Amino acid sequence: MSRPIDDTHRLDLTSWVESAQEPGTDFPIQNLPYGVFRAPGDSRDHIGVAIGDKILDLARCRYQLLLKDLRGDVQFVSAADTLNPLMDLGVNHWQSLRNRISALLTEPGMKSRVEPCLFEADEVEMRLPAAIGDYTDFYASLEHATHIGSLFRPDNPLLPNYKWIPIGYHGRSSSVVVSGTPIRRPSGQRKGPDDHEPHFEPCQMLDYELELGFFVGGPGNKLGDPIAIEDAENHIFGVCLLNDWSARDLQAWEYQPLGPFLAKSFATSISPWVVTLEALAPYRCAPRSRPAGDPEPLSYLQVGDGSQAGLDLELEVDLVTGRMRRREEGPHRVSQSRFRSMYWTMSQMLTHHASNGCNMRTGDLLGSGTISGEERDAMGCLLEITRRGAEPLVLADGDERSMLEDGDEVILTGRCAREGFATIGFGECRGRIQSAGAHG
Amino acid sequence: MSRPIDDTHRLDLTSWVESAQEPGTDFPIQNLPYGVFRAPGDSRDHIGVAIGDKILDLARCRYQLLLKDLRGDVQFVSAADTLNPLMDLGVNHWQSLRNRISALLTEPGMKSRVEPCLFEADEVEMRLPAAIGDYTDFYASLEHATHIGSLFRPDNPLLPNYKWIPIGYHGRSSSVVVSGTPIRRPSGQRKGPDDHEPHFEPCQMLDYELELGFFVGGPGNKLGDPIAIEDAENHIFGVCLLNDWSARDLQAWEYQPLGPFLAKSFATSISPWVVTLEALAPYRCAPRSRPAGDPEPLSYLQVGDGSQAGLDLELEVDLVTGRMRRREEGPHRVSQSRFRSMYWTMSQMLTHHASNGCNMRTGDLLGSGTISGEERDAMGCLLEITRRGAEPLVLADGDERSMLEDGDEVILTGRCAREGFATIGFGECRGRIQSAGAHG
Repeated sequence: MSRPIDDTHRLDLTSWVESAQEPGTDFPIQNLPYGVFRAPGDSRDHIGVAIGDKILDLARCRYQLLLKDLRGDVQFVSAADTLNPLMDLGVNHWQSLRNRISALLTEPGMKSRVEPCLFEADEVEMRLPAAIGDYTDFYASLEHATHIGSLFRPDNPLLPNYKWIPIGYHGRSSSVVVSGTPIRRPSGQRKGPDDHEPHFEPCQMLDYELELGFFVGGPGNKLGDPIAIEDAENHIFGVCLLNDWSARDLQAWEYQPLGPFLAKSFATSISPWVVTLEALAPYRCAPRSRPAGDPEPLSYLQVGDGSQAGLDLELEVDLVTGRMRRREEGPHRVSQSRFRSMYWTMSQMLTHHASNGCNMRTGDLLGSGTISGEERDAMGCLLEITRRGAEPLVLADGDERSMLEDGDEVILTGRCAREGFATIGFGECRGRIQSAGAHG
Repeated sequence: MSRPIDDTHRLDLTSWVESAQEPGTDFPIQNLPYGVFRAPGDSRDHIGVAIGDKILDLARCRYQLLLKDLRGDVQFVSAADTLNPLMDLGVNHWQSLRNRISALLTEPGMKSRVEPCLFEADEVEMRLPAAIGDYTDFYASLEHATHIGSLFRPDNPLLPNYKWIPIGYHGRSSSVVVSGTPIRRPSGQRKGPDDHEPHFEPCQMLDYELELGFFVGGPGNKLGDPIAIEDAENHIFGVCLLNDWSARDLQAWEYQPLGPFLAKSFATSISPWVVTLEALAPYRCAPRSRPAGDPEPLSYLQVGDGSQAGLDLELEVDLVTGRMRRREEGPHRVSQSRFRSMYWTMSQMLTHHASNGCNMRTGDLLGSGTISGEERDAMGCLLEITRRGAEPLVLADGDERSMLEDGDEVILTGRCAREGFATIGFGECRGRIQSAGAHG
């Protein structure tokens, strides 16, 4: 059940925050994503809402009694230092807080009272938006799974379970970091094709993966109780961009028989702004049609073609190398892809995850898996683009990349656009590679 | 670096708690494991120490000023509602608190002041001992890996990476439950060998796995910084029993290519008492010698044969079926095995886990993987014992088991014994299977 389109999405809605009207802003009045930030000189984290190039401090709004017509618990969670208590409240309260924030930022009469609650976005430090209990990563792009499978099993790229199960694995929550956190190149055991023995040394095949993350809320389910597919979106608070950094050489040597482990757990980056499902209402779409001959999902995973279980989100990966930075050259656009092409929807992933009774907790993070299209310029990781390094990516400045090098910075962005509605963005998910250093 | 043997381990040490002297008690004065409990009528969880058939309430001890000669932060963490703050303090403080508790329970002059801080163990409710951030499960028994591998790859049971890497995977922390919590049979996708398509239905191959769990403390490491093998035990607070419940049919269909997921995440049981590395000092032993021809571990994993990195712990699995319970018959002993036979030590698992810079947090739980010996009566799960159901286990009452049935209760126990020292036990890790029920 997707959220309704309402007055907070109207294209003619304008904020008295002028930068929210600038063309190309990720954060017009129709977006209102939540994040957690620390203001200069402050010792405590606050919840903020992005608006143009400003951040609305919800704790200050509460202290200024700007939220006082909301229920007590909604006011209370607005002054928390993570989004978890807000994520826990559920759809009705999410809607009422959004309505209130929209009103605060649009009604001209509110400006003088609300303006003292604004910070310049470029003057604060963004933090992880939630305390993440468990992090799970899926593999929901048919194209990604096919491309990867074809590198390892050319005759049989897709395993027999793929079209039945939203394949996923448990990830590491401790090393989920917010955009901007430097990513140290991991060391680990690698064994080249000509090596007799593995060696412990810095990763030589460091890759990114373009993904969408989504946060559980609403709250979750009790241990033993599954989540019905019709109810799944009531347990999703919002989405962010996610970079599932991957050490391909470590992974190749370690992953049999229990799956990826240290190849992933050194770092996962997420964007600081959580775009709510409320904000995304206008951009929902039918889920991808299954190719002819594919099985129907089992009944517990059926969402119906007429549903709005898909999401029309455009994603982009940009790369800034150390050389570009020194020359003050712009980023190289590596790929663009669309989330609507995913084989499995967010609801299907969440429902499958809880189908064995696994309890999902508020603040748990689920990753979609790499979002890839069919063509090379729509592939979401270098392993696919370069075919495991065999066909290096040629950058605009003539440089080449098989995999990431020290100093490379990967920038993920995303935006939703629809005729008759505002274009909303996701901000950035950035990470720059540091050398393995003394530990390598 | 294992902990020193000291006066708290002396065999002639006696407690004024009489039941601590009873032969066969798991909790003599030399043990002093920590747990978290809730007393009848209380609304808050307290840290307790098991002594005989009693529990010493540390929060009450603090309020009674019985800990006042300890540093302020040690007193403070003793009144917490999880073990995490205590786990965070580090080796020196763990030792000083142990010394104090040992003195409180041995000095006859303390009895009148300490006795009001005791509860009957069978009158309280035990809780999860820690807030577990991430849970990781290893696969450190060579025999287990070989037995399992031989079921699926008779010609090549052990994969090439096994003797180089402590193989592990990220587990699910939300569904870790304390001993005694009922285990609902999970449902999920299964596909029999003769099925054309998978079906969503209750698991038909439900299994247990006998494991040891160990908790990170001390505190952990920062993201990006590995943990040196020599330092690893300073980051381990203590150990418990762990049952890694496994849905074998779900696992067979789902696990390629990213590893076990819903086959594991429905529940993991742990015993309520965390036996500290301080208590285990007398029972440490050299790590298992590697069989001739096996590679030496890479240098970052080398502990040295002369070290005390092993642990001489005897483990046992008992089963009570519904029929036994109705007839009031005793449990059937299914297997006995020894932790000292593990191919990888706790230090090696922890150091490997952090070798890519993955940050380990206080309260993180690591499981050893199924602890199996070579023989059938030393195998730690039914998949091994029954060779995937082909050779059912015959119980004492003539009943048979290929896998677990509804109403079956699995009981894990463990004890350390050494000539000249007390025998200390781990208590129990119990779980009884409930039917899949209405959700199935």
